[in-house]
Amino acid sequence: MTGVHPAWLPAEAFRAVNSRRVAVHGEGLLVDTVRAEVAAAESSSPELVLSLAASPGSRGVLGDDGFTLERADGVTRIVAEAPAGLLYGFFHVVRLGEAAFGADRPVEVHRPALRRRMVDHWDNVDIHPIMGQVERGYAGGSLFWERGALRADLSRVRDYARLLASCGINAVAINNVNVHRTEAHLLTDRLGEVAAIAAHLRPYGIRTHLSVNFASPIVLGGLATADPRDPAARQWWEVTTRRVYETIPDFGGYVVKADSEGQSGPFAYGRSHAEGANMLADALAPHGGVVHWRAFVYNHRQDWRDRSTDRARAAYDHFAPLDGQFRDNAILQVKHGPMDFQTREPVSPVIAAMPGTRLAVELQATQEYTGQQRHVCYLAPMWSEVLRFQPHGDGGPAVATLAGSGGLVAVSNAGDDPFWTGHPLAQANLYAFGRLAWAPDADPLTILDEWIGLTFPDATPQLRQALHAMMDDSWRTYERYTAPLGVGFMVRPGRHYGPDVDGYEYSPWGTYHFADRDGVGVDRTRATGTGYTGQYPQPWADTYESVDTCPDELLLFFHHVPYGHVLRSGSTVIQHIYDTHFAGADEAAQIRDAWSAVGHLVGSDVDDRMRERLDEQVRSAAEWRDQINTYFYRKSGVPDAKGRRIY
Amino acid sequence: MTGVHPAWLPAEAFRAVNSRRVAVHGEGLLVDTVRAEVAAAESSSPELVLSLAASPGSRGVLGDDGFTLERADGVTRIVAEAPAGLLYGFFHVVRLGEAAFGADRPVEVHRPALRRRMVDHWDNVDIHPIMGQVERGYAGGSLFWERGALRADLSRVRDYARLLASCGINAVAINNVNVHRTEAHLLTDRLGEVAAIAAHLRPYGIRTHLSVNFASPIVLGGLATADPRDPAARQWWEVTTRRVYETIPDFGGYVVKADSEGQSGPFAYGRSHAEGANMLADALAPHGGVVHWRAFVYNHRQDWRDRSTDRARAAYDHFAPLDGQFRDNAILQVKHGPMDFQTREPVSPVIAAMPGTRLAVELQATQEYTGQQRHVCYLAPMWSEVLRFQPHGDGGPAVATLAGSGGLVAVSNAGDDPFWTGHPLAQANLYAFGRLAWAPDADPLTILDEWIGLTFPDATPQLRQALHAMMDDSWRTYERYTAPLGVGFMVRPGRHYGPDVDGYEYSPWGTYHFADRDGVGVDRTRATGTGYTGQYPQPWADTYESVDTCPDELLLFFHHVPYGHVLRSGSTVIQHIYDTHFAGADEAAQIRDAWSAVGHLVGSDVDDRMRERLDEQVRSAAEWRDQINTYFYRKSGVPDAKGRRIY
Repeated sequence: MTGVHPAWLPAEAFRAVNSRRVAVHGEGLLVDTVRAEVAAAESSSPELVLSLAASPGSRGVLGDDGFTLERADGVTRIVAEAPAGLLYGFFHVVRLGEAAFGADRPVEVHRPALRRRMVDHWDNVDIHPIMGQVERGYAGGSLFWERGALRADLSRVRDYARLLASCGINAVAINNVNVHRTEAHLLTDRLGEVAAIAAHLRPYGIRTHLSVNFASPIVLGGLATADPRDPAARQWWEVTTRRVYETIPDFGGYVVKADSEGQSGPFAYGRSHAEGANMLADALAPHGGVVHWRAFVYNHRQDWRDRSTDRARAAYDHFAPLDGQFRDNAILQVKHGPMDFQTREPVSPVIAAMPGTRLAVELQATQEYTGQQRHVCYLAPMWSEVLRFQPHGDGGPAVATLAGSGGLVAVSNAGDDPFWTGHPLAQANLYAFGRLAWAPDADPLTILDEWIGLTFPDATPQLRQALHAMMDDSWRTYERYTAPLGVGFMVRPGRHYGPDVDGYEYSPWGTYHFADRDGVGVDRTRATGTGYTGQYPQPWADTYESVDTCPDELLLFFHHVPYGHVLRSGSTVIQHIYDTHFAGADEAAQIRDAWSAVGHLVGSDVDDRMRERLDEQVRSAAEWRDQINTYFYRKSGVPDAKGRRIY
Repeated sequence: MTGVHPAWLPAEAFRAVNSRRVAVHGEGLLVDTVRAEVAAAESSSPELVLSLAASPGSRGVLGDDGFTLERADGVTRIVAEAPAGLLYGFFHVVRLGEAAFGADRPVEVHRPALRRRMVDHWDNVDIHPIMGQVERGYAGGSLFWERGALRADLSRVRDYARLLASCGINAVAINNVNVHRTEAHLLTDRLGEVAAIAAHLRPYGIRTHLSVNFASPIVLGGLATADPRDPAARQWWEVTTRRVYETIPDFGGYVVKADSEGQSGPFAYGRSHAEGANMLADALAPHGGVVHWRAFVYNHRQDWRDRSTDRARAAYDHFAPLDGQFRDNAILQVKHGPMDFQTREPVSPVIAAMPGTRLAVELQATQEYTGQQRHVCYLAPMWSEVLRFQPHGDGGPAVATLAGSGGLVAVSNAGDDPFWTGHPLAQANLYAFGRLAWAPDADPLTILDEWIGLTFPDATPQLRQALHAMMDDSWRTYERYTAPLGVGFMVRPGRHYGPDVDGYEYSPWGTYHFADRDGVGVDRTRATGTGYTGQYPQPWADTYESVDTCPDELLLFFHHVPYGHVLRSGSTVIQHIYDTHFAGADEAAQIRDAWSAVGHLVGSDVDDRMRERLDEQVRSAAEWRDQINTYFYRKSGVPDAKGRRIY
């Protein structure tokens, strides 16, 4: 290992900019960052001009983050109204490379579609006995802490901030939403550590957010209650928040997981989640901060024998009635699907149900259920589907629009691994997240090529093509060899890696498939099931309700059907299971083969890591194929129509 | 909690002895122990005389541990040839209570059937990240160590020794057979800790044994190899063992788990297990020590897709060919069944296969697979069946006889819990183990009543009857609501508590049930299966081979049969599963009910603990019932003939 890899910002990616004369106009921290990036003496005859326009004619059009790009008379010009815009404009030129310095370009206006583009770190600060230092972290340890203490050398945090800014991310929540006793103290006596991290994120335009424990007035303040209606509790938050802003004037705000999986919350006091969130919002409002309040609230002590409870319903049932009750600076952070970051889920019905609430959509870049950064799984095609989904049907607003006032959040997949993300190709998910948060209608495969070009600037066409081929359909490949037709889970409990079809079937977690000798799937219809389909507006409420119109890839999420049920694709459910699992495992092997042909074209450290991960993916995919096929063969008794080996 | 409970040695149990005049004749450490026990000034007209006969006429008949009991002329006399015999005679009088002082008794000779009666502690010394301080320990922490260091106060070790001696146990292995780096050092630089423990066990006639790592010459000695043929490795063991005996002259010997579940062993050097064991035996022989070499060797990285490998075959396949090659002081320690301490297993075929080898049979008092000391499960009836089993058929030697030269070993169920064993009733397993090791043909229910009488000396008949009724059939009750018909496992992986029917089905551990929509069970026949039945001598080889003669309770261990297969009992397999699971869960509730009627008759601390455990047993038994029934209903599609609720 030769040290930390530069991910998609190797020196070669800056060749086009660095070989030219550059002028930077403007003052301030972020302008200085740009100036340091170009690392060139300012020139009187520049080929690239980056200008912060103090009061340009377009004031208000570009906003904090936007910029214009123009090329004329042999000069490429970036103009921004605010410092962050200049920074984003600079990285846009880097992305363009030589193309930024070719033919003339008329003025283009670039603005992000979503104002807040955020990554959440599930960083436990200390080592959690079960989850390790980073919960669901597959990229080594924390970027911020080491052995429970702030890292002495935070230079890598600055490198991380640079990576994030280069793809448009402007907010980071630095600690786990499960706030244990240790991390709770970041809010008060360990606030200096937060400030130190913020100081390294700030030069790249990134605001620092903190996950806090709802019971902080008790845990930290020694109060008897955290009741949102209790004046002392409210005052504690006001005073505490004021101190935070005295230390970190551009602090972003709080993230809260309340009344979920054992975390404390307003339910203990008989208060609504709106009341809980508003208490924190009120404390933050005078300082311009926001609270991200997570909608991930459900009963994780369900009895599997109770068929009347449906975890998929929970977020809507809890939050839809509260629409309009949240403060303006309270953002309801909703997971993209109703369950928990499965490989395939329908879009959460909460997103369409709360027009009077600022919503943020939460994605999971850390590959908890999608191969844990040991499998190639480029997630941008899934995210793109989510962001383009129109909950009210064609012509209605897309998810990206509905989340416009809140933003897009991803659980980060980065850690102190030399490749940042464990699997070198998993970097692409972090990059693509930032790019989609900026432009949700961007083509995920164009973003993929962009990432390949930046990360491997000197790649031969053969290497670029191989990488593209390995990654473009890798999410669907992963889907093919894991849980079928949207049914979800079937993973080893706890660890969530590798197959265990019945692993969660008799558990309290509410994640069941109900496979028996006749059929499989969860009946979530209004007619005969849990009624979950009724949480969608039309046309989806009816589309999902009927087995005839429900999309194949979500059939078992919405319906319990016999193994002989014929899909819209023409295949039976059981034959589809066999076919996709044989195909998916074959594709995993093809991904490895593709790399074998080009691995020698990159450094041996990258190649070694790639081969180790790809070997594991091929092994694991075969294990998935065989367990799933054997399980359903044993249950259904239906042989594979193609006579392939089922154990 | 009022402190540590005296288990089956409360002061009241000594009332009959302590209310009489006692004389103790003899000298030595153990005689002093007896003298201290009676705690009475010696009398010139004693009613109880305990005599160590320096050279009695019966020399050689009683041996080290035997004694005679006689009552005549108003005097009860215990005579022993060796100090331990006097100690056992004393506790025998305690057990008899007033009955020892009633009518005249002719001379009775008492001798143990098995020479070595041993408990093994799976004590990790330090906290193991997964297994905790005591592996599979359900009774709190270690009796010996605290926070990785020897306990400052070892008085409880002496109390433990007293309990063990009172039921006849005379050997203790103090640390886990999985010898991690920390415990490895007990053999050398931490030997003083072993000596300190031995000093507290010695007054009760208990010799101390130590589990050692086969790779110790490398790990501790800095050598390049632990090869049994390497002179330096052999010399390291000789020198090290000599030092052990210089420190602990009555040291018992070593316990070794080699080439098993990741532990090192002779396979690494291409040597047989006999060669490995003999190297240690040779080092121990000059000092009178023995090595217990465990036969628990199997492939724990099996591929579930490979139907040709059968874990049940492993111990026999490894060890039977080595019969006659082990030294006299090498004892092959064989688990009672071929798998791993399941609720029901056939007797291990190894026990009949090695007439030229000293064998010890290993039982598991710690209830890993039998309710983890949260369920009432009195194991003596199972152990009794094992010990009475005649591998060569009627008239042949019983297991207890075949193990006569080696002994009986139990994995201890005791820890620093105030009740010693977590569940107060689990004490009975430890007690019964000692008693069965002394007299394997004793009636386990008589032993049960003996334990009840000692533990609750002042119990009303109602309380005694309730305890008897709760415990006598509790093992079979546990069997009824867990894995059916000898198929085993179906537990949550790792923790081994609670049901998970497919939990190990696709795992590398070799523990499968092969349930599909048509049937269930493992075909281990010679005709069509793995051939395991051929490891038994006749008549069992044929008895187990045929579905017509195979005992119902082991049917699925030996055969894969359709759900409609009719058992010898007349029931179908599927109906048997339903019937036993409804019955077992009902019986668990009855056990709780029985206690509810008498709980007020004991101290509130005992009652509180009992109620907490019984509530959990009832909950868990219902969970087992429902998961097993639902699993098999979903697979078979056969409804319960009695129309009871299956979820």
